[in-house]
Amino acid sequence: MRLEAQWIVGFVDGEGCFHVGIARDPDMRTGYQVLPEFTVVQHERDAQVLHALKAYFGCGVVRRNHGDRMAYRVRDRRHLLERIVPFFMKHPLKTRKRVEFQKFRRVLLKMEQGAHLTEEGLEEIRRITSQLQGMRSDQSR
Amino acid sequence: MRLEAQWIVGFVDGEGCFHVGIARDPDMRTGYQVLPEFTVVQHERDAQVLHALKAYFGCGVVRRNHGDRMAYRVRDRRHLLERIVPFFMKHPLKTRKRVEFQKFRRVLLKMEQGAHLTEEGLEEIRRITSQLQGMRSDQSR
Repeated sequence: MRLEAQWIVGFVDGEGCFHVGIARDPDMRTGYQVLPEFTVVQHERDAQVLHALKAYFGCGVVRRNHGDRMAYRVRDRRHLLERIVPFFMKHPLKTRKRVEFQKFRRVLLKMEQGAHLTEEGLEEIRRITSQLQGMRSDQSR
Repeated sequence: MRLEAQWIVGFVDGEGCFHVGIARDPDMRTGYQVLPEFTVVQHERDAQVLHALKAYFGCGVVRRNHGDRMAYRVRDRRHLLERIVPFFMKHPLKTRKRVEFQKFRRVLLKMEQGAHLTEEGLEEIRRITSQLQGMRSDQSR
């Protein structure tokens, strides 16, 4: 299955998720680890679409999510910065998910500057991330 | 907002619904009315995307669905047959929603032959429609 860029934009406008997790991690100086991830979840019947996304971006994994759901997931920060972010900069999302993506990108750029390694930077990332989560709970049906 | 065909395919692969309702109607010879409809539901924040779909297809309406949800909806059989169906024949869906669309199209073509006006034809439409509904409840998260 070959995908076109605009199909991917439309599909991600509907089904994609730009998430930033913040997890306790005593090994980190701040006590927390920042975990950005891009995911697309589908019924297992449509796993081939997820594999086609993986092939298109040349990164990420396709794994079982929960129950009969599969997920395409990109967590590697280099892959997010060099493949996922440039794609959606070149091909903008059309729904409000564009705002979610922009915040996600801001967190990644902050991390490039090492912001997640300082208390102050982590606080800023938390602020951006809480806006992200606010948007999503708003969107849930 | 201008939409490209492939964006629409991707978005409908994620968010679209091809539904055939069968409702009691004592005015019909069979006692039932067959109501095919194509819908895309979004948070009201993304109503502009629904209006862009309406502009693209040149048919249908954008209405409140329930709560903070809006829906783009096409129910007119001529519009479904002459605008929606040809679009998705030319630009095939990539997920299993393609199968849902094909059954939806079969019902519309049966109706063109007047099948919904006879007991026998209505039974056949019921069979196709129950498969459709089976697929969807399967897909719900």
